[in-house]
Amino acid sequence: MDIKTYMKEARAVTDTRLKELLPAETDYPEVIHQAMAYSVFAGGKRFRPMLALAACETVCGDWKPVLDAACAMECIHTYSLIHDDLPGMDDDDYRRGKLTNHKVFGEGMAILAGDALLTYAFEILSGMADDTNSRQIVTIIGEVSRASGTAGMIGGQVVDIISEQTKPTTELLHYIHHHKTGALIVASVRMGAMLGGADETQLAALTEYARQLGLAFQITDDILDVAGDASKIGKPVGSDEKNEKATFPALFGLEQSRVMADEAVQAAVAALEPFGEKADMLVQLAQYLLGRES
Amino acid sequence: MDIKTYMKEARAVTDTRLKELLPAETDYPEVIHQAMAYSVFAGGKRFRPMLALAACETVCGDWKPVLDAACAMECIHTYSLIHDDLPGMDDDDYRRGKLTNHKVFGEGMAILAGDALLTYAFEILSGMADDTNSRQIVTIIGEVSRASGTAGMIGGQVVDIISEQTKPTTELLHYIHHHKTGALIVASVRMGAMLGGADETQLAALTEYARQLGLAFQITDDILDVAGDASKIGKPVGSDEKNEKATFPALFGLEQSRVMADEAVQAAVAALEPFGEKADMLVQLAQYLLGRES
Repeated sequence: MDIKTYMKEARAVTDTRLKELLPAETDYPEVIHQAMAYSVFAGGKRFRPMLALAACETVCGDWKPVLDAACAMECIHTYSLIHDDLPGMDDDDYRRGKLTNHKVFGEGMAILAGDALLTYAFEILSGMADDTNSRQIVTIIGEVSRASGTAGMIGGQVVDIISEQTKPTTELLHYIHHHKTGALIVASVRMGAMLGGADETQLAALTEYARQLGLAFQITDDILDVAGDASKIGKPVGSDEKNEKATFPALFGLEQSRVMADEAVQAAVAALEPFGEKADMLVQLAQYLLGRES
Repeated sequence: MDIKTYMKEARAVTDTRLKELLPAETDYPEVIHQAMAYSVFAGGKRFRPMLALAACETVCGDWKPVLDAACAMECIHTYSLIHDDLPGMDDDDYRRGKLTNHKVFGEGMAILAGDALLTYAFEILSGMADDTNSRQIVTIIGEVSRASGTAGMIGGQVVDIISEQTKPTTELLHYIHHHKTGALIVASVRMGAMLGGADETQLAALTEYARQLGLAFQITDDILDVAGDASKIGKPVGSDEKNEKATFPALFGLEQSRVMADEAVQAAVAALEPFGEKADMLVQLAQYLLGRES
């Protein structure tokens, strides 16, 4: 299958399932459910769910076992964006070309909508358990909470904040990205692998793929912020530079950053070798990343 | 045992375990762990953990099986206070007589500290699982997430916010309190019962106890806000009235509110009858509530 078709289908099944899993916008108290849905359905690429689905399919030939967990990851990703955009954090008015949550629903409701999505992710994960798989579900809940907490995503956000206006180092840059975006990407791939029934060797290979992919994803994100098309990425170009954020282009220059992204994608693809053709979509996803425009 | 001694001991074991479970303040990135610890150890009464411990002890004679879960509830309670105090929510400078989290660590860090404590609660809960109890742990994770989400605590906060400056009704008041504070109190008691090995009848009895106790707790809280001693409750008296919040004294008057709190405590105690003397501490806790000054 062609990667664009695969991505479109993965987005569609994720969106359909997210609508089923999340409280209806007509459920009392309506405004919080509307605020949650507003940001969840604001046009995200579903990159993390897609990785979870493709990893699961690579291992067992089916994405269904991981679908709900993939939706939980999207809830966590969305909550982090809502809170990141708040006046007390990055103070952004637009995200993906749409008004940010707090600009539409007010600051208090945006804080609660983020809190609710984070909470809901764990409700979704716990809802996947039955009499046979509880040990595995609780292991995944543990991995997801670590990947989202101060040893993962939140840790990356904290270091990002405290490092502003200081000269970025390679070490710092890697810490921020490995934690801020890398941890959730790794967790997404690993949950797909685990729920697909991966053995230890397969899990290790997919974890390495995810690490390299996360790095490539972040480098291309930084490159797009410098050299991208504002109308495609949905935010002003150059906002990282304005905020003096630690980025790959700032530290290594644009050309060297492109080489690094390319090398990370190659390493990601190399890690998939044991899976042969079964990993086709994961290979194509990694290569697609390099050429993306948003 | 005397209730004050019991409360002191329950607080001590909870605090000791919370210190062990939470990341050390010296762990990188330090500031977020300091912000988390600041609010967790800001002098809370540990009311929810205490209820979990006492419920567990009532059922099986030991509080140890629920200790970690009780600490997770305190993390969730603390996160909700940090976010409640934010400028975008209640905008409070003081809590329990100390500066609020965002006044000390800044708004961005306070948002992240709350997020981290909520996330950490689920890491603690998942960490309780072993080969024999995973089904039960995942059930508890489900109950805790529902009690904390839009069908529970967050739902109550939302209705509290959207109902400000409107005339409170009895129905609205009960909705807010049943959700905003009641849900976590019920979840705390139920996790203690479940991890203590309660059968269905015992679980139902303790759930009813918790519902009535939660109501009594909220009514006395509202009464203290009107008629309490500011130096003991750690915030200015009359702040609810100033914010035109829906409260029991505002709707029923002070005297009738006291009668209602008394009736709720009697109903709570009546629900414990099947346990006989084993429920002594839960009985005393309910009675203590009525006479509390903070």
